[in-house]
Amino acid sequence: MSLPRIAIDAMGGDEGVRVMVSGAALARRRHEQFKFLLVGDEARISKALEAHPNMREASEILHCEDVVAGDEKPSRALRRAKTTSMGLAIQAVKDGKCGAAVSGGNTGALMAMSKLALRTMPGIDRPALAALMPTLEEHDVIMLDLGANTECDARNLVQFAVMGAAYSRIVCANDAPRVRLLNIGTEDTKGTEKLQDASHFLREATGLAMRFEGYVEADKINRGDVDVVVTDGFSGNIALKAIEGSARFVTDLLKTAFRSSIRSKIGFLISRPATELLRHHLDPNNHNGGVFLGLNGVIVKSHGSANAQGVANAVAVAARLLEDDLTTRIAADLAALDDGALKANGTTTAQGQQ
Amino acid sequence: MSLPRIAIDAMGGDEGVRVMVSGAALARRRHEQFKFLLVGDEARISKALEAHPNMREASEILHCEDVVAGDEKPSRALRRAKTTSMGLAIQAVKDGKCGAAVSGGNTGALMAMSKLALRTMPGIDRPALAALMPTLEEHDVIMLDLGANTECDARNLVQFAVMGAAYSRIVCANDAPRVRLLNIGTEDTKGTEKLQDASHFLREATGLAMRFEGYVEADKINRGDVDVVVTDGFSGNIALKAIEGSARFVTDLLKTAFRSSIRSKIGFLISRPATELLRHHLDPNNHNGGVFLGLNGVIVKSHGSANAQGVANAVAVAARLLEDDLTTRIAADLAALDDGALKANGTTTAQGQQ
Repeated sequence: MSLPRIAIDAMGGDEGVRVMVSGAALARRRHEQFKFLLVGDEARISKALEAHPNMREASEILHCEDVVAGDEKPSRALRRAKTTSMGLAIQAVKDGKCGAAVSGGNTGALMAMSKLALRTMPGIDRPALAALMPTLEEHDVIMLDLGANTECDARNLVQFAVMGAAYSRIVCANDAPRVRLLNIGTEDTKGTEKLQDASHFLREATGLAMRFEGYVEADKINRGDVDVVVTDGFSGNIALKAIEGSARFVTDLLKTAFRSSIRSKIGFLISRPATELLRHHLDPNNHNGGVFLGLNGVIVKSHGSANAQGVANAVAVAARLLEDDLTTRIAADLAALDDGALKANGTTTAQGQQ
Repeated sequence: MSLPRIAIDAMGGDEGVRVMVSGAALARRRHEQFKFLLVGDEARISKALEAHPNMREASEILHCEDVVAGDEKPSRALRRAKTTSMGLAIQAVKDGKCGAAVSGGNTGALMAMSKLALRTMPGIDRPALAALMPTLEEHDVIMLDLGANTECDARNLVQFAVMGAAYSRIVCANDAPRVRLLNIGTEDTKGTEKLQDASHFLREATGLAMRFEGYVEADKINRGDVDVVVTDGFSGNIALKAIEGSARFVTDLLKTAFRSSIRSKIGFLISRPATELLRHHLDPNNHNGGVFLGLNGVIVKSHGSANAQGVANAVAVAARLLEDDLTTRIAADLAALDDGALKANGTTTAQGQQ
């Protein structure tokens, strides 16, 4: 079978284009059968391809000079969908010329453009943004939604659980991922009504391609005993940023402490292999590949500051999701799950006070 | 003027009672004029007091054998308010025998009992749980609510801002604390309607004893450029636990890394002063003293695992709040703030989808 191509938003200046092209070339070493559509400035892309002859053979270039700015409002970017590298990469997925698009650009714009162009897949009410994060164990944990939907109902949460589990099965090679809902306690009575409704539904549901294990508190996300953490976009965004900020806070304190005396500096130099191990484990490049789940097409968000290895991980995520046909998997899982019962209940977003 | 006494819930076994009494004795060195009501097993308390003769003179013992269990449901603990050390410590505040109570016990039970016995102060719709957290700077940051209210409206958030600012002015000696609302972005259009309403109100309000500076994202909480972070109890609990969990995650990784080779172990030993500095900065004992704000009386929650120094910090927080009369300060701030405009709007908890 011939695999669909992957569109790469080769945005940015010389450096940006070079990183995206190098990253895709690195990923192609592990996924040799893939072909690419590189969208961006043709001269810059051709130049970047000179270092990667194998990649050149597998790539078509779609010339485009316009780029969505990092701080551009999604509403403005939407109007420039037909002229920007991001917009054209997504359009290629919409037109069936590519199966997936990878971009390191403005997240809000990518989300808005993808949603409008690709629309949600049958059975999914809303798409969700999912990311991989490190744990104390070897495997990563997936968390969703991270900001696509400020407020969600129980039905959204159940669909996020299904999509997150499908993502985990493919990318983390889990046959039956352990799924939990993010909450402020683990007792049944904790949290909002929509969380309790979603939990009740998932506990009772049969034929789920996951192990639903109830609630998880935010201090347990990275312990390694949960594979998929499901939450609304507001709480997910808070939790993700709090985790990132706190990790940076501790490493900043550590740097200051190591610089505090000659003795500490010497100790730091000697123990550098240890601190490098830490740095490697926390490096976002090693956990790169946020995905918008639930659309008719695979859209992968690479970190804006990712290096070539980071981009390669994001492209590899897109490749894995196409090889294992994420969209069909989610559709099959949804078909096995009768979430009609949640319709009446879940669409009520007004919640009583606890 | 004679200062009100502080009730100490001297709960737990020999060790628990000893830590609470030692902590109160330590705090009294800095706040010599304070007297205490020690609630718990008389024999154990008397034994613990032997090591602290000055404390003995300043203390009265209220004998009580029953203790609220760490995993006891708040509803059950409520029924035992008249017989448990926690319940009797709160009752002493209610009866005017003490101005504040400090407990290291079950947070949910402490919150439920305090709320029922003391009720919210005039002008406050709901109490909030506030805690101190470390930052990259010398000063701590205060975050509230951390779980007293799963869902909040705009009016609640505005009142939390007023209470958090009063707490910061007293405990962190800030004349005009920088206050921000926790949100998923800093643009005006981000987040829920209630956040936008609260932000709009605080921006327009005059005579505030704080500097309201808009929104803060969860990765910036510990950077040191905000003094009070205001949020609903669900998001606050998620953010607090995510920060704690992530800090533990990084330090656990660091421990593993330092143990990974002889070389790393040696480096660790040499740089121990640096890692001790980090440990000291992150040690919850140095930031102890969660407070239930908005009640008719001061209730301070000490960490369950706090050592004597941690308890001393919690008792010192209670002492400072009594010395500077927190409740009167909040009342005066509220009087200066006409939040009537928020009444109609804020009481609507049903939020439209974003």
